[in-house]
Amino acid sequence: MTRYRVAVHIVPRRGLLDPQGKAVADALHTLGFSAVTDVHVGRHIVIESDAADAAAAEASVRAMCDKLLANPVTEDYEIASVRTAEGA
Amino acid sequence: MTRYRVAVHIVPRRGLLDPQGKAVADALHTLGFSAVTDVHVGRHIVIESDAADAAAAEASVRAMCDKLLANPVTEDYEIASVRTAEGA
Repeated sequence: MTRYRVAVHIVPRRGLLDPQGKAVADALHTLGFSAVTDVHVGRHIVIESDAADAAAAEASVRAMCDKLLANPVTEDYEIASVRTAEGA
Repeated sequence: MTRYRVAVHIVPRRGLLDPQGKAVADALHTLGFSAVTDVHVGRHIVIESDAADAAAAEASVRAMCDKLLANPVTEDYEIASVRTAEGA
């Protein structure tokens, strides 16, 4: 078993309203960042987990996203990286 | 001016308490994912902005993080990627 560090991005599904992103874009405009055209706010989750290999670690994190981490109606997720954790 | 899409990760500073990550780890254990050893929850923000070049886009997003997006006391941020937005 090796310890893997898997990073996941969970983002509002494209085409759905992203009120948090809209609020951040408005705040940036107020602060003078007028070049900003769009903002999307999602979650960046890093999971450390023991697995036999990288494929197993990724499959296990996908199962976690399906069961708990991402809302299947409003959010999409993507595995951003799968790395062995340092010092494991 | 080119439109750039800049992705930023904002994460709780290492060594500080991450109660949301702890809650997610506990929930995953309850669901049977016993191999999970640690979870960190941060934000994944994608900003579309017009800039002269990629370096200017990145500098502008760093300024946004310093002024609004990241809490300098409890959070660290890193620029994950700077790309030209498709269709711009």
